[in-house]
Amino acid sequence: MTRVTVFNENYHEVIRPEVRKIYNKGIHGTIAEFLQCDDTEVKTVTLYDDNGKMHPDCGITNALLQDTDVIIWWGHCHHEKVSDEVVDMIHNNILCGMGAIFLHSAHHSKLFKKLMGTTCNLNWRDGEKERLWNINPSHPIMQGIGDYIDIPEEEMYGERFQIPKPDDILMLGTYSSHEVFRSACVWQRVYGKIFYFQPGHETYPIYHMEEIQRIIKNAVNWAKPLYRERELICPDFPKIEL
Amino acid sequence: MTRVTVFNENYHEVIRPEVRKIYNKGIHGTIAEFLQCDDTEVKTVTLYDDNGKMHPDCGITNALLQDTDVIIWWGHCHHEKVSDEVVDMIHNNILCGMGAIFLHSAHHSKLFKKLMGTTCNLNWRDGEKERLWNINPSHPIMQGIGDYIDIPEEEMYGERFQIPKPDDILMLGTYSSHEVFRSACVWQRVYGKIFYFQPGHETYPIYHMEEIQRIIKNAVNWAKPLYRERELICPDFPKIEL
Amino acid sequence: MTRVTVFNENYHEVIRPEVRKIYNKGIHGTIAEFLQCDDTEVKTVTLYDDNGKMHPDCGITNALLQDTDVIIWWGHCHHEKVSDEVVDMIHNNILCGMGAIFLHSAHHSKLFKKLMGTTCNLNWRDGEKERLWNINPSHPIMQGIGDYIDIPEEEMYGERFQIPKPDDILMLGTYSSHEVFRSACVWQRVYGKIFYFQPGHETYPIYHMEEIQRIIKNAVNWAKPLYRERELICPDFPKIEL
Amino acid sequence: MTRVTVFNENYHEVIRPEVRKIYNKGIHGTIAEFLQCDDTEVKTVTLYDDNGKMHPDCGITNALLQDTDVIIWWGHCHHEKVSDEVVDMIHNNILCGMGAIFLHSAHHSKLFKKLMGTTCNLNWRDGEKERLWNINPSHPIMQGIGDYIDIPEEEMYGERFQIPKPDDILMLGTYSSHEVFRSACVWQRVYGKIFYFQPGHETYPIYHMEEIQRIIKNAVNWAKPLYRERELICPDFPKIEL
Repeated sequence: MTRVTVFNENYHEVIRPEVRKIYNKGIHGTIAEFLQCDDTEVKTVTLYDDNGKMHPDCGITNALLQDTDVIIWWGHCHHEKVSDEVVDMIHNNILCGMGAIFLHSAHHSKLFKKLMGTTCNLNWRDGEKERLWNINPSHPIMQGIGDYIDIPEEEMYGERFQIPKPDDILMLGTYSSHEVFRSACVWQRVYGKIFYFQPGHETYPIYHMEEIQRIIKNAVNWAKPLYRERELICPDFPKIEL
Repeated sequence: MTRVTVFNENYHEVIRPEVRKIYNKGIHGTIAEFLQCDDTEVKTVTLYDDNGKMHPDCGITNALLQDTDVIIWWGHCHHEKVSDEVVDMIHNNILCGMGAIFLHSAHHSKLFKKLMGTTCNLNWRDGEKERLWNINPSHPIMQGIGDYIDIPEEEMYGERFQIPKPDDILMLGTYSSHEVFRSACVWQRVYGKIFYFQPGHETYPIYHMEEIQRIIKNAVNWAKPLYRERELICPDFPKIEL
Repeated sequence: MTRVTVFNENYHEVIRPEVRKIYNKGIHGTIAEFLQCDDTEVKTVTLYDDNGKMHPDCGITNALLQDTDVIIWWGHCHHEKVSDEVVDMIHNNILCGMGAIFLHSAHHSKLFKKLMGTTCNLNWRDGEKERLWNINPSHPIMQGIGDYIDIPEEEMYGERFQIPKPDDILMLGTYSSHEVFRSACVWQRVYGKIFYFQPGHETYPIYHMEEIQRIIKNAVNWAKPLYRERELICPDFPKIEL
Repeated sequence: MTRVTVFNENYHEVIRPEVRKIYNKGIHGTIAEFLQCDDTEVKTVTLYDDNGKMHPDCGITNALLQDTDVIIWWGHCHHEKVSDEVVDMIHNNILCGMGAIFLHSAHHSKLFKKLMGTTCNLNWRDGEKERLWNINPSHPIMQGIGDYIDIPEEEMYGERFQIPKPDDILMLGTYSSHEVFRSACVWQRVYGKIFYFQPGHETYPIYHMEEIQRIIKNAVNWAKPLYRERELICPDFPKIEL
């Protein structure tokens, strides 16, 4: 049994009817739905509730994190509203083994930047067709994925992506106007595995695509820790010195 | 003083007048011309002489290699005609510190495949516009190069490029039809530095472009060995056990 | 079901009674014995048969390799007797996904050097106590292994180990006389996963140690291919161009 | 002309006469002295002045950083007293190209941890003989360094060192009691080059050793930026979004 926690800002969904139309249970709800199965148990937490009320702790507690094998993060415009204490607590759990998947605009979340140690800036532009090339087909996250995936419309994310050199690059995204992006990258930070995956702008139904779902499912399986109990690998958890 | 040896098959230039028209001194002659300067001394060697006679040793001797800081390799259709003895001798010198630059279709040379340990296969197609993105602008090989370089017409080389993970990727090439390629990559093998650079099909005047020349000049400077005498770093050179 | 093929020179065992005493079924027999279980089927092949007769093809056929998920290699003094054709055939299968585990003096096998593209030279000296530090405890190959393993007596293998930069270093070996070695390293070459593991000199009972067996079992599990049929990931297998 | 700024806590030197005896101008003064030459201009800044008064800004301004090619950092017990604003300002300059060298206990400085994104924890113990093995002799930082360096007495720093995988490991340190450490490592973070070097406990005269000085000099030369003006590579410097 893999235990996944999906974080979503849940802001666009509450504010913009056209986003709600695409993701009527929120992006978190859509992700939870396709991940949930006999072997995977999914919880969701959000920065905003469905009435638009903001919760700086996002409903994230250390107890929840200790019961989480992999956290999935979707955020966009309100990264700064997640409290530093929550960020530190998650960061701590990742270093002690919890897996972490960062989707699309989560590249600018406090948590991702703290893990990377860089700005994680990139170039961007409005929607366009993207082709994602699978350059590492024997990596477990690419299992079942062919030579490329076409996304009919996607926000353009282009280089230079100001990240540390990835441990592995799995996909390169290209756009009609010749831009290019390292769209699927992995890193290890101490004992935690990290996956960044670029697709998923809120105004396109990208998380409804079967191949995108397949990759996120594979990534959950890849990122889960070797040892469920953090203490087995980090004896002084959760009091590790940061 | 950096001492460069440029190898070229010199086959297309001898056989095809349209190639000779673009490179009237051969590709090796063009490269030698733009590299030659007060600080750089360039020799050239070819598989075919200008009369079309083939020389399996390409004029390469161990004495020449010991006086070479960086070797540049251009080959295409006659990789198999370079003798194994010559390949082993160059390989040996590279491991002991000589720099090596592989241009365009040199990806399939015996020497490059021996260094990489893989097939180095790739996808390819006829001429198209390419945009080369500089994703590592603080690398010495990228000095003076802007965000990207446009090549009006180039043979398409696309992923998957079956190489070991590069130590660094410097440029990503993209094409109108959405293909993508790791176009500028570096590796270290024992004490030798290796640069692969994709541009340079024989039917286009690509080595006459200033920015391409700049990159090759930078690469020579980057690839040259720390110690000119191979014995200083490889005490049993040239008798190293392979 | 994982299908493992263990190659062993089987030379020391035939020639030297003290080695036969430690490994009375040969090193291949010992490895096969501890690997064999409900989920793992093991075949063995040897360069020398138990009568001391040499077989340059080692009993390795392409049919055997296509039915092999992971090959394990132990060789020492007779690397050159393995035919180039056999080496090329195995190399080809590894690039197309077969896993490969190289033990101890297999660092100098033709196959390992062909995959690495370097000499794979190292320093060595006679027996001494070794402590192997686990520096990557969340890597699947290290599952169940503590902070370090002590080997009471082992041949000293020391730096500089002339290999390409590993994708990951899992263990560092240290010796009483201050030498150090990258004792457990992994690489990917095209679609095949490769593990080099230094312990295992023929005159010490190292493959009888539980922790060493645990690591080799973990490595088999880690190295097995994503796709059992090579053609799924290498469409032109077994006719790939090398 | 390379412009170096050396930061030192200058705490032990002020408080403990036995440290002052070894470094009578402070560790910063010793480093400045051996670096200073025709081609290198050195400034020093300290957390404590020689009267023991603490300055949270350490005398570091953005103007100073813009005139600095490489910063060298020595801190131990008072990492927390350096203000977050100063840390952010230096971090920003490093991402935009300034080189950074972290010595010994600077592994736990706020700045190094922010760059690495991990705890940077390690094991340690009191003084012992250390042998540092040069495993990457063709790296520019190792120029002129032999197979190993012996330090008669040094604080033991041992694995596991909780850092991201280095871009390159240059030296491995070993101790009589079998511990081992990745003692000399490099990383790139966006456009800045980073070197961590373990030797240098305050109670031993390690920065007076010629080989240690040689390595630090080489590192300054290696870490200096390609472009002196940060704006050339980071157009929105110093207002980059973090």
